[in-house]
Amino acid sequence: MPRSDRAHPAWGRVRRPAYGADYNPEQWDRATRKDDVRLMREAGVNLVTLGVFAWSWIEPGPDTFDFSGLDEVIALLHESGIAVDLATPTAAPPLWFSHAHPESLPVTADGRTLAPGSRQAYCPSSPAYRERAALVTRRLAERYGDHPAVVMWHINNEYANANAHCWCAASADAFRDWLRTRYGDDLDVLNDRWGTAVWGMRYSDWDQVVPPRTSTGGLSPGLWMDFYRFSDAEHLDCFRAERDIVRTHSPGRSVTTNFMAGALRWSDYWRWAREVDIVSSDHYLMSEDPDRAADLAFAADLTRSLAGGQPWMLMEHSTSAVQWQPRNLAKAPGEMARNTLTHLARGADGALFFQWRQSAYGPEKWHSAMVPHGGEDTRIFREAKALGNTVAGLADIAGSTCPPADIALLLDYEAMWALHLPHRPSGDLTCGDALRDWHRALWTVGLPCDLVPAPGEHRLLLVPSLYALSTATARALEDYAARGGHLVVGPFSGVADPHDRVHPGPYPGALRDLLGLRVDEYLPLAAGGTVGLDDGSTGRLWAERVLPDPGTEVECRFTDGPAEAGPAILRRGTTRYLATRPAHSSLLRLLPQWAAHAGCAPPVGGAGHGVEVTRRTAPDGRSWLFAVNHTGRPARVAATGVDLFSGVRSAGEVTVPAGDVAVLVETPR
Amino acid sequence: MPRSDRAHPAWGRVRRPAYGADYNPEQWDRATRKDDVRLMREAGVNLVTLGVFAWSWIEPGPDTFDFSGLDEVIALLHESGIAVDLATPTAAPPLWFSHAHPESLPVTADGRTLAPGSRQAYCPSSPAYRERAALVTRRLAERYGDHPAVVMWHINNEYANANAHCWCAASADAFRDWLRTRYGDDLDVLNDRWGTAVWGMRYSDWDQVVPPRTSTGGLSPGLWMDFYRFSDAEHLDCFRAERDIVRTHSPGRSVTTNFMAGALRWSDYWRWAREVDIVSSDHYLMSEDPDRAADLAFAADLTRSLAGGQPWMLMEHSTSAVQWQPRNLAKAPGEMARNTLTHLARGADGALFFQWRQSAYGPEKWHSAMVPHGGEDTRIFREAKALGNTVAGLADIAGSTCPPADIALLLDYEAMWALHLPHRPSGDLTCGDALRDWHRALWTVGLPCDLVPAPGEHRLLLVPSLYALSTATARALEDYAARGGHLVVGPFSGVADPHDRVHPGPYPGALRDLLGLRVDEYLPLAAGGTVGLDDGSTGRLWAERVLPDPGTEVECRFTDGPAEAGPAILRRGTTRYLATRPAHSSLLRLLPQWAAHAGCAPPVGGAGHGVEVTRRTAPDGRSWLFAVNHTGRPARVAATGVDLFSGVRSAGEVTVPAGDVAVLVETPR
Amino acid sequence: MPRSDRAHPAWGRVRRPAYGADYNPEQWDRATRKDDVRLMREAGVNLVTLGVFAWSWIEPGPDTFDFSGLDEVIALLHESGIAVDLATPTAAPPLWFSHAHPESLPVTADGRTLAPGSRQAYCPSSPAYRERAALVTRRLAERYGDHPAVVMWHINNEYANANAHCWCAASADAFRDWLRTRYGDDLDVLNDRWGTAVWGMRYSDWDQVVPPRTSTGGLSPGLWMDFYRFSDAEHLDCFRAERDIVRTHSPGRSVTTNFMAGALRWSDYWRWAREVDIVSSDHYLMSEDPDRAADLAFAADLTRSLAGGQPWMLMEHSTSAVQWQPRNLAKAPGEMARNTLTHLARGADGALFFQWRQSAYGPEKWHSAMVPHGGEDTRIFREAKALGNTVAGLADIAGSTCPPADIALLLDYEAMWALHLPHRPSGDLTCGDALRDWHRALWTVGLPCDLVPAPGEHRLLLVPSLYALSTATARALEDYAARGGHLVVGPFSGVADPHDRVHPGPYPGALRDLLGLRVDEYLPLAAGGTVGLDDGSTGRLWAERVLPDPGTEVECRFTDGPAEAGPAILRRGTTRYLATRPAHSSLLRLLPQWAAHAGCAPPVGGAGHGVEVTRRTAPDGRSWLFAVNHTGRPARVAATGVDLFSGVRSAGEVTVPAGDVAVLVETPR
Repeated sequence: MPRSDRAHPAWGRVRRPAYGADYNPEQWDRATRKDDVRLMREAGVNLVTLGVFAWSWIEPGPDTFDFSGLDEVIALLHESGIAVDLATPTAAPPLWFSHAHPESLPVTADGRTLAPGSRQAYCPSSPAYRERAALVTRRLAERYGDHPAVVMWHINNEYANANAHCWCAASADAFRDWLRTRYGDDLDVLNDRWGTAVWGMRYSDWDQVVPPRTSTGGLSPGLWMDFYRFSDAEHLDCFRAERDIVRTHSPGRSVTTNFMAGALRWSDYWRWAREVDIVSSDHYLMSEDPDRAADLAFAADLTRSLAGGQPWMLMEHSTSAVQWQPRNLAKAPGEMARNTLTHLARGADGALFFQWRQSAYGPEKWHSAMVPHGGEDTRIFREAKALGNTVAGLADIAGSTCPPADIALLLDYEAMWALHLPHRPSGDLTCGDALRDWHRALWTVGLPCDLVPAPGEHRLLLVPSLYALSTATARALEDYAARGGHLVVGPFSGVADPHDRVHPGPYPGALRDLLGLRVDEYLPLAAGGTVGLDDGSTGRLWAERVLPDPGTEVECRFTDGPAEAGPAILRRGTTRYLATRPAHSSLLRLLPQWAAHAGCAPPVGGAGHGVEVTRRTAPDGRSWLFAVNHTGRPARVAATGVDLFSGVRSAGEVTVPAGDVAVLVETPR
Repeated sequence: MPRSDRAHPAWGRVRRPAYGADYNPEQWDRATRKDDVRLMREAGVNLVTLGVFAWSWIEPGPDTFDFSGLDEVIALLHESGIAVDLATPTAAPPLWFSHAHPESLPVTADGRTLAPGSRQAYCPSSPAYRERAALVTRRLAERYGDHPAVVMWHINNEYANANAHCWCAASADAFRDWLRTRYGDDLDVLNDRWGTAVWGMRYSDWDQVVPPRTSTGGLSPGLWMDFYRFSDAEHLDCFRAERDIVRTHSPGRSVTTNFMAGALRWSDYWRWAREVDIVSSDHYLMSEDPDRAADLAFAADLTRSLAGGQPWMLMEHSTSAVQWQPRNLAKAPGEMARNTLTHLARGADGALFFQWRQSAYGPEKWHSAMVPHGGEDTRIFREAKALGNTVAGLADIAGSTCPPADIALLLDYEAMWALHLPHRPSGDLTCGDALRDWHRALWTVGLPCDLVPAPGEHRLLLVPSLYALSTATARALEDYAARGGHLVVGPFSGVADPHDRVHPGPYPGALRDLLGLRVDEYLPLAAGGTVGLDDGSTGRLWAERVLPDPGTEVECRFTDGPAEAGPAILRRGTTRYLATRPAHSSLLRLLPQWAAHAGCAPPVGGAGHGVEVTRRTAPDGRSWLFAVNHTGRPARVAATGVDLFSGVRSAGEVTVPAGDVAVLVETPR
Repeated sequence: MPRSDRAHPAWGRVRRPAYGADYNPEQWDRATRKDDVRLMREAGVNLVTLGVFAWSWIEPGPDTFDFSGLDEVIALLHESGIAVDLATPTAAPPLWFSHAHPESLPVTADGRTLAPGSRQAYCPSSPAYRERAALVTRRLAERYGDHPAVVMWHINNEYANANAHCWCAASADAFRDWLRTRYGDDLDVLNDRWGTAVWGMRYSDWDQVVPPRTSTGGLSPGLWMDFYRFSDAEHLDCFRAERDIVRTHSPGRSVTTNFMAGALRWSDYWRWAREVDIVSSDHYLMSEDPDRAADLAFAADLTRSLAGGQPWMLMEHSTSAVQWQPRNLAKAPGEMARNTLTHLARGADGALFFQWRQSAYGPEKWHSAMVPHGGEDTRIFREAKALGNTVAGLADIAGSTCPPADIALLLDYEAMWALHLPHRPSGDLTCGDALRDWHRALWTVGLPCDLVPAPGEHRLLLVPSLYALSTATARALEDYAARGGHLVVGPFSGVADPHDRVHPGPYPGALRDLLGLRVDEYLPLAAGGTVGLDDGSTGRLWAERVLPDPGTEVECRFTDGPAEAGPAILRRGTTRYLATRPAHSSLLRLLPQWAAHAGCAPPVGGAGHGVEVTRRTAPDGRSWLFAVNHTGRPARVAATGVDLFSGVRSAGEVTVPAGDVAVLVETPR
C-alpha cells in the first residue's frame, strides 16, 4: 500500500479522474505546441506527464541548464488549465553523459557493454549516474517545485525495463557491499545460504563474489536470488533518492513512478508501492491475443491491490497499436474506450496515454497516440475526444474504491523469480502463467478478486504457485486457515526457502503440516501431455504422487498418467491442495465451487464470459456499477440504477450493447 | 546503367557469348592445370575469371611478390585461346596482413572482432587494408595490364557479402567524416534528420556519434539509414579505387565486379551499375524451392535493368548443388542448361560458373563445378560440354538486347532498408518479399517486365512497396502519372522520408495528392491472417482504413477484417492504390487486368506457368525468340522462325519438349 | 581396450557387482552422514565415489589442506565395509584458484571468457590449472593411496563436457606446439593438409595459426579437425598426468574416469579406453523419448566395446528424473531396476547412481538420487533397496563377459566429427544419427552387436557412415572383406581423408575398389523427403547416382526421386553399398537379411521389440541369460535354466512379466 501522510498526501492537487497523456513537446515546434494545447482542451485533457525524456533538453551539456523550453510549455499548459505531472528525466541520460562516463553503461551477463543511443543506457549502481541524476532532479525540483501547474511528480520511467540487471564492475562492487550488509559481513553465512558446498564453489574472500555472469554451467540459485533482490533494491534506491529530493522542493505534490505491474518481471512492486504517494502503472495489450481483454482486468486488479485498494492511476496505455510486437494490430473502434473504462471500473482514478502526439521519427513513431500522424480528423482523435467527455462525466467517482473482493490471489515475486531459474523438474511450470491462468478463469466466470502478497482477510485465498517461501510465510498461511480462511494451494508449492534450498523432510516442505499430506515424487508431464481426473477435470504440465495424512480427504483422483489412481485434489478442513495444474476449462468449474464453499458472493447476474461487472463505492454510501461488454453481442446484466450518461433508470436489469460500457449510479441499497 | 565511353568501352575485347568459370589454379598442380586447359577447350570455354582469391599466391609476404604461377597459367590459357577476366585478389587479404593489422578485421555490432581465416575478413574503412589492396592491385595491373589474354578485369568479389557493415573504431571515424561531409559539418542538421529529440538522444559533439552498436533498446532509424548508406559508400569507394588503378594500367579492357543482384541486400546497385563497364552478377538458386525457376527470371530481369537494358554477364552460377544451404539439392539433368539459357534469353551475353574444377578441400569443396571431383566422365561435365556447344551456337545474339518491357517494377534500395528496420507496424511486411511476389506473379502469367529505380517510359509502373521516399521521388511519380503512365502502388507506401521520418499530414504522406486518398489508420493482420475483397481477391498481412478523395473511385472493398466494407483497391485516373497485399492467386488475376488497362502487350501465346518466352533483338532488325520450358510437359508456343539448332522452320507455333529450350531466328516481322 | 597389467590390475580390489553412488558428504552435517552409512548398508551399497567436487573442501585456500572431513568420512565408510572410489577433485577448481588465475578460465569461439562459479571452469591447456591439479592430486594420493577403504580412483569427472574446446591464448599456444610436433615443424605440410590454397589462407608464420575463432565465413575444415584432435588430446593429457600421480602413490588400485560414451561427442574414447584400468561411463536417458529403452542398450554396447568386451562399470545413472532437460520426467516404478539390469546384462560389473543423497540446494538439487529429499520412506529408496538386494544376488556373474556378437557397428569418432562440420551436401546427414538408427533397428529385431573402431573378426560389419577415413582404414576394410567378412557400407562413405580433403578420383574415393562402383553425383533430398526402392524399402535424406562396375550386382533400385531407376543397394561379393539411408522400418527388414547372409546367429526366440535377451558367460562355462521386458505385456522367451531369484527351473521357455527382468542360470549346453 502506498505510503501517504499529511506531508505527502496521496493525490494532493491532482484533479480526478485524470485524463491525458505523456507529452513530449521537445519533439515539436512552437506552432504545433499551441495546437497541442488547443486539442488537449478539446479532448478534455486535464493532466499531462511532461519531460520524461527531456534530460538533454534541459541540460544540453554538463552543468549547462536551459529551462526556457520547459518554462514556456508549462506556462502554456497552465494558461489552459492543464495540470502537469512533471517527470525527472533520468531514464535517459544524455549522450554527453554516456560519452564522458562509459563505465556507467550497462554490461550484459556475457560481458558486453551496451552502447548509448537508447533509453535506460545506465547501470543503476553507477556512482556517476546517481550523482548526475540527483543533480538534474534537484535543479528541476528547485525550479518547478512551487509551480501551480505542477500537481504531481513522475520519477524516471519504467524502472528496470531494459536495464533490470547489470553485470558491470560497479554493479559487482555494489553487490558485494549489499551482500556484506545482508549477511553481517560473514562469508560463512553467505556460503550457507547459497549452498556453495555443491561443486565446491565456496567463497573464501569477498572479492571472489561477482554477479552471475555467463559461465560453463549452472550457478548457485542462491546467488541468482540475491542478485535479483540486489538489482531490484538498486533501482528502488535510485527512485528513493530522486523522490526525496523532489519532496524537499515540492511540498504537497504527489510523487509516483510508473510501474509495469502487469508484466510480472523484476520489480517487487509490493515493496515499491510503499514508497510512492500514488500507485501508477503502464499497461499494454498483446495485440494478437484474442483474449486480451482479460489482461486488462488482471493488470488493473494487481495495480489496485498494490495500491492497497485505494485509487490508482493508469499512467500509460495506448490509444491503438504499439510498435514493439511482431505484428502490432490496431485497436478496434471502441476498444480504447472500453479499455479505459475497464481500468476506471477496477479502481483507477485516471487514465493517461502514451503519448499525446504520435512522434514523427524515432523508434516509437509507430506507437499510436491521442493525436495520430493524421491529426485531428482521424478515428483515433475523435474517439479520444469522446472518451475525454465520458471520463469527465465520471467526476463523481473520484476517490471511491472497489470494495474488497471475497477472493484473493497470492503473488510472491521472489517465489516467481525462484521458479524462473533453470534446472527445475519442468521448465513449463512458471508462476506467472499460473497466476494469469487462474485470474483469467475467475474473470471468465465473473468472480472478482484482489491480489495479495500475504494472507489477509479474504474468504478464499488462491495460491496457484508458491514454490519458494520462508517458514514465516508458511506460518502465516497456517494462521489464515486456522482462523477459518479457505485456501487452495497449487502444485509444487511449499518446496524451497527464499534461497532456493529445499525445505528439509518430505515435500511439500514448509506446507506439509498445513496441507496434511506428503508428496512422494513430483511427476512432470511430457510436452503437451495432460492427465485426467475422476471429476472430469483435466490436469496440465504436472502430476504428483501424493500420500494423504489421516484426516485429509481425497476429493478427486487421477484416472491416468504417472500418478494414476492417486489423489489429485485433497482437502483438509478449509484447505485444498492440487497435485496438478487444472486446465482452463476445469478451472472454470472448480473455482466457482471453491468460492461457493468459502461463502463468497456469487457473480452478478449476467457477469462473466467477456462481460465485466464491477462496483465502486464512496464512503458516503454512493455506488456505481460498471458493466463492460467486451463481446460482440448485447449483454443483459442484473443492475438497478440510473445510467450515468443517458439518465435512463433501470430496475433489475440493464442491457449493454455489444462492445459498450454502462455506468449506473446505483439506487442506495 | 553502366558508364561506358570510348576510353572505357563496355565489352571491349570480350568474345561473346562468354562461357567459362572461375578458375583457381593455385589449388592444383601443373599436370592438372594442363588437363584443365584441355578440358576447357573441349567444353568450349572462352573466358575464365582468374585470381579471385590469389592474394597470398602472388604476394606471399608483405612486399614480396611472386608472379611466376600466374605468369605460367595466363600463358597456358593464352596459348589455348582462352581469354582471362583477371581479378584483383582483394576480397581475401592474406593471413600475414590480418596478423600484422588486427585492427583491420571486421567488428560486429556487439563488439566482437571477427578472426581471420576466411574471406572478406576486412573492414572496408581500414586504412591499412585500403593501402595494401591498392598496392597489390597496382602491381597486378602493371604486370598484366597489356597482356593480350587479359580482356577484362574483375575487381574484388561479391562486395559486402560477409562484411557489409563494420562497427570497428576505424569505421566509426570514417562514419563521422562521412556524416560531417553529408551534413555540412553541422550537428544540428544531423540531430534534425535523425530525430534525436526522441528520448533526448541529441548529439552535442561529433565524438558522441558512433555506428549503431548493440544497445539497451531501439536506436535512431536515421542513424541506421545513414549507417547503411555510409557502409555501401565505403565498399563502393574501395571498388572505385581499384578500378581506377586498373584503368590506368590496362586501357581498353572492361572492368566489372560481380554483384549479388538477386539477393536484394546492402548494396544499392543502381549506384554501383554506373561505375562498371559491364554489369555482372552472381546467381544461386535456393535448391529446395520448387518454384526456383521464377527466381532466375527475377535475378536476370534485375541485372539487365541495372545494365540499362544493355547486355550483361552472369558471372557465377552453379552447375549443380551448392554447399551453403541446409540441404543442397543437385540440379536435375538439363537444369543447368535451362538455367543458363534463361539468363541468355533475358539479355546476358555470357554465363560463367563458379567454378571450373571442384575444390578437393576447404569450405567450398561441396560446391559443384564444371569438372566435378569425379572428373570428365560425369553427368555434369558432359552437360557442361554440350552446353558450351549450345552457347557457341548463339554467337549471333551477342550485343542484341531485350526490348524494353511495357511493365516496370520499382525497386528502391533505401526504401527496402527502411522497411527492414525494427519497430514497424508489422515485421511481416518486407519490401523484398513484395517485389519477388509481384515479379513471380508476372512471370507466372507470362508478362515481361523491367525493374527501375524511378519512373520512366513504361506503360505500367508497379510499386509494390515504397515505404520511404523523398518528395522528389513523389514528384517524379506524379509526373509519370501526369504524362499518362499507369501506376499501381502497394500498401504502406509514401509514408516516410529517407531519414525514416514520417511525412507530415495524413497518410500516405508524400503520395497523398497523387493517390487521392487518405489512410485513417494502418491495420496489420495477425500472423497468418487474411482478408477478403469483394472482387474475390484475398489480401495478406495488412489492411488499411482508407478515405477516398472526391474523384477517387473505389474499385473493390474489403468484405471482412479490420477494414471491413472499406476500400481495398482505389483508382484515380491511371493510378491505383492497394490497401492490402494481394495473395499470389489474386495477383495472377489482377496484374493482367492492370496490364490490359495500361495497353500493355499481352503475353505470347503459350507463355506463362513455367513456360518463358522472351525475345532479343539486334539493331539491324534480326530477332531471336527464346522459349524455355521449365515444366515436365511439352509446351506449345506461338512462334514463327527457324530453330537455331535444328534448322527446322516453324510457322505460327513451336512445340518445346518438357524441360527443353528452343531458340528461333525469327522471320523479320 | 583398457590397458591392464600386473602393476595395474583391471578391477583390483573392487567387489563386484559394484552397487552404490556418488557421495558428496561435504553437503551434509555429521548426523546426516551417519544416517547415510546406515542407509547405504540397508540398500546394499558396497562402493561410493567420493570427493568428485571436493577440491575446495580439502584445499580451502592455496596450499592450505584440510583432510579432516574426508578422513572422517572415509573412516566411517570403512567401518561399515563400504569401499571408496576416490575422486581427484579437479573437475571443479575452487574459486580462490579461478580468482587468482583468470587466465585459466575457458574462452568461447567468439572471445568471451566464461566466469567461474560452476564446474569445469578451466582450460585444459592452462599451465596454472595443470600445476594446481597435479598438486591436489598428489596430496590426495599420498594421503589415501594406501587406505584399505580406497579400492579405486576416479580421475576428474566427465572430461570435456562443458569445456570441450577452449579458444584462449594458452590454448592457442598449446595448439601451435601440438601442430609443430604433428607436422614436424613444417608449415608447408600444415598448409597442404589444411588446404589453405583455398581463398589464399596460407600460413607463412606459425604465429598466424590460431584456434578456429568466429570469423566472417567458413574456416579450413582441416583446421577444425586438428583443433578437435588437439582438444581431445589436451584433456587426455590432463587425465594421464593425474593417473600417473595416483598410480605412484596407490599401487594395486584401479584407475578410471567416467566417460559419457552414449553421448557421442568430442572424446575419442577408443583412445581413452586404452588409458584406464576399468572402463566406466555415465548414462542418462532423454526422459521424454518413448523409445528411450533402446538407448540403454546402445550406450551399454558401446561401453562394453570400449572395454574390449571385458566387464565395465556404469559409473552414473539416475534413480529417477534428471534436472537438465526441458521437462524431466520421473522414471516409472520398476524402470530404475530394469535400466540397471539392462546394463548388467550387457556386461557391466557394477552400477552406481549420481548421487547417493539428493542435494538440498544448488543446480543439481532436482536431480534424483538414491535417498530423495523425502528420505527413506519413499518409492525411490524402497526400489533402490530392493535393487541392491537384486544386484547382490548376481554376485556370481562378476567377471563373466558377453560373448562377442556376430555383428559389429563401426564407430570412427574422427569421421563423425568431419561430418559434423558445416558446408556439407546435407546438414541432415549426421554420423551419430546413423549409428543410433542402425543400433536401434538391431535392438528392435533382437540382434546383438558390438561396436568397433576398425574391422575385426565379426561376421557382419556394418558401416552406417564413414565419410572421412585414411587409406589405411580403407585397406583394413578391403582386408576384412578379402578374408570373407560381410560388410554393409552406408551412403556418403569413403569420401574424404582425415583432413577432410576429398580422396582423388570418382566417389567413393578410398572405397571405390572395395565397393566396385562409382558415384556420379550425391543427391541429397529436400527436408522430409523420401525415396522408394523396388524391394519396398524407403530411403531417407539422401540418394546417389551410382554406376556399378562389372561384377557388382544391383540388388535393388530407386523407384523415384533424383536417382530414379538407378541402383540403391549394390553387392560385390560379401560387400554391400547403400546409396540412401534406409528408414527404420526398412532397416528392420534389411538387417536380418544381411545377418542371415553373413551366417549370424538368429535372435533368441521371443527377443526383440522391447524384449532384450542377452547372455553372459564365465570362463568355466557357466552362463546366465538375462531377459529384460521393457514392454507392458508379458513376454515369452526361449530359455532353459534356473531362475536366479525364484529358483524355478524353466525348460525351453520362460515368461517374463511386463516390465520385469528374468535372470536364468543356464543349463550347460
